[in-house]
Amino acid sequence: MVIALVTDFGTRDIYVGVMKAVMLGIHPTAQFIDLSNRIEPQNVRQAALALMNAYRYFPKGTIFLVVVDPGVGTTRRPIAVKAGDYCFVAPDNGVLSYALAELEMGAAVEIDVPEDASISNTFHGRDIFAPAAAKLAAGVPIETLGTPILKTFTLPMPQLDVDGKQVMGEVVHIDRFGNLVTSIGQLRWVTPERLILNPTFGGSAGMTVPVFAENAAVSVHHQTMVSIKQTYGEAERGSLLALVGSTAFLEISVNQGSAAKRLDAAIGDRVELQIGEFDAAVRD
Amino acid sequence: MVIALVTDFGTRDIYVGVMKAVMLGIHPTAQFIDLSNRIEPQNVRQAALALMNAYRYFPKGTIFLVVVDPGVGTTRRPIAVKAGDYCFVAPDNGVLSYALAELEMGAAVEIDVPEDASISNTFHGRDIFAPAAAKLAAGVPIETLGTPILKTFTLPMPQLDVDGKQVMGEVVHIDRFGNLVTSIGQLRWVTPERLILNPTFGGSAGMTVPVFAENAAVSVHHQTMVSIKQTYGEAERGSLLALVGSTAFLEISVNQGSAAKRLDAAIGDRVELQIGEFDAAVRD
Amino acid sequence: MVIALVTDFGTRDIYVGVMKAVMLGIHPTAQFIDLSNRIEPQNVRQAALALMNAYRYFPKGTIFLVVVDPGVGTTRRPIAVKAGDYCFVAPDNGVLSYALAELEMGAAVEIDVPEDASISNTFHGRDIFAPAAAKLAAGVPIETLGTPILKTFTLPMPQLDVDGKQVMGEVVHIDRFGNLVTSIGQLRWVTPERLILNPTFGGSAGMTVPVFAENAAVSVHHQTMVSIKQTYGEAERGSLLALVGSTAFLEISVNQGSAAKRLDAAIGDRVELQIGEFDAAVRD
Repeated sequence: MVIALVTDFGTRDIYVGVMKAVMLGIHPTAQFIDLSNRIEPQNVRQAALALMNAYRYFPKGTIFLVVVDPGVGTTRRPIAVKAGDYCFVAPDNGVLSYALAELEMGAAVEIDVPEDASISNTFHGRDIFAPAAAKLAAGVPIETLGTPILKTFTLPMPQLDVDGKQVMGEVVHIDRFGNLVTSIGQLRWVTPERLILNPTFGGSAGMTVPVFAENAAVSVHHQTMVSIKQTYGEAERGSLLALVGSTAFLEISVNQGSAAKRLDAAIGDRVELQIGEFDAAVRD
Repeated sequence: MVIALVTDFGTRDIYVGVMKAVMLGIHPTAQFIDLSNRIEPQNVRQAALALMNAYRYFPKGTIFLVVVDPGVGTTRRPIAVKAGDYCFVAPDNGVLSYALAELEMGAAVEIDVPEDASISNTFHGRDIFAPAAAKLAAGVPIETLGTPILKTFTLPMPQLDVDGKQVMGEVVHIDRFGNLVTSIGQLRWVTPERLILNPTFGGSAGMTVPVFAENAAVSVHHQTMVSIKQTYGEAERGSLLALVGSTAFLEISVNQGSAAKRLDAAIGDRVELQIGEFDAAVRD
Repeated sequence: MVIALVTDFGTRDIYVGVMKAVMLGIHPTAQFIDLSNRIEPQNVRQAALALMNAYRYFPKGTIFLVVVDPGVGTTRRPIAVKAGDYCFVAPDNGVLSYALAELEMGAAVEIDVPEDASISNTFHGRDIFAPAAAKLAAGVPIETLGTPILKTFTLPMPQLDVDGKQVMGEVVHIDRFGNLVTSIGQLRWVTPERLILNPTFGGSAGMTVPVFAENAAVSVHHQTMVSIKQTYGEAERGSLLALVGSTAFLEISVNQGSAAKRLDAAIGDRVELQIGEFDAAVRD
């Protein structure tokens, strides 16, 4: 069974290796996929976004072990959740909430924690979460891991305001290439000239906005890019462009360069999409 | 069979991947766990500490391939050692010594090295250590890998002086979060208020020191933290605290921040534990 | 079946994990080896060199998934190539060319790409290359993946001029330890004093040059090292030396230090090998 990891434990320390060791002790045939162990320390929202953009590519039955846990040792609950075709094990701090918002919830439990000296106060990844994930991978029913819960903690959604011909969003992730991933999302090409914007992420669900790529303008840091491109190659090498990224969100990039360096951009920066001429705003 | 790697080869170059390739050629069903490939270049002691703090979480039979090898190509011996429920393959430069100090030694050999052009002078990880580890994983008896040896090289233990009501130690590791892991170790909570300090690591074996958490003070870089905490959450967000880390050593941390940055700390920095009132120092 | 990855996707983002997820969906028993996911962004030549120096250590049948793809979304072709005992999947931008130059070419195809919305314009690693690699691993014949092609794109070879008693090369890679790997290659010790230089890499194939290690001098950045050493340990700790690296190329190193830092060296720096007395230059 596949166990996918999202953590802020890094690749330098022994933490991730020790969690995998513990899991192999419980379920010797586990297959591990490191989705990212380099989430910024304690950045729950970054982990929630990474999970949201990745889970759907995994085989059915995959168990996601998500340990970004600034509240380790305090009262936040350790949880295990079945949702869609997947299982998730994490602290109940919202790190699952963007993925869970897209999935049908199944059983969910607060994981029982034995009160004994084998449980550290600082590394629940090793002592609580990894064992729970390995048990699920080994076929243990989720209900036996703890006490049923009805609700899990939800993070606020990234800012996204749709207002007439203007969509206001923000930079939510900067990748290794310096691409700025924004909160303006669910963009889909319907023809080579025309996109549908369906801003379900951010709370305005149900509104779909047709956009003609040529008549759109994207602004960030006082730079404006006219039109939304399909590929990096449509801009000159070294030039800024706006395009639809691989996760269906609007991205700002430099062809064969770094938009983050060019714009000195940071997570949280405001991004504005102006729609010059759109044929209709259709409420579903 | 599980093969766990501890190396200083990093994640950028092809070295680790090539070692795994060589091992799969010998033992196609090997399961690899990267414990850390980001040991500081040539830092034998850092690797020895990582191994000591991790090996016990691995399944019985795990083979540890430990390649931090500043003496590659010189006369230091390549060795394979059975100890406890594990096997270890490494250069005989002390990198195994902290783990071996805790385990019952079994068979140990100096690995035979063929004198031919297939053995490089600079990458014994690929040409000597990985093949030996893979053979062990495949079930080859350790005795057939080389010539029996009786002793292995031992690193000096980190400094730890227990003197009446004062324990002097040092920072031995700084993790990704900026936590300072010290050499003051084998701390175990016996009640929520009371710890036992059993400084077996560092040479003063046999002395156990009861410590009341409230009456302890930890000093580093002219900063003093009064009392030893159980969890990060007992300090204000952004505040320094001393607590018992997940490997049973005293750690200095900042709740949701970096103690290393706050204190501009480095490995080797002196750490002092003052015990205000301890009921007794019992020699076992 | 083993799938080895060479990419510039890094270890921080979800890209590599998502590619592996997609592959497990197609071929659930794939074994992944990360050769390097930290190729410099868009550095096709660095990836080509990494692949050339690593592929031969992998088990027969290994599939190499090589995604360094500055032209993603443009007209460069996605290809799959059988060569020697291996398969390679990559964009046709030269990233395979150094490895393919050493192997007998078998079948090669331009991978068919369905024209539908499931193919992004920015992440062909996930949508085209990973599925093709997984299909090959699952036993799908390469011919069924696309349209046969006869030629693939070739990168220029690193500069290497052999001129009488002088060989001019360049720094082609700097590793984690700060070792400078040069383009002066195929060096083999025939006795402890004598090397054969066979500069097949770089285009001067067929010329073998005997070199007495004692009578060679290597210059870079106005520093000259007299004689070629066999091991780091032949130089004082902290001293510069030239030696034959683990991939049979001339390397410049500092024993237990970084030659890159010492010399402030960079990729592309000129390196000169002077041969004081060589007994003969034998054309094969």
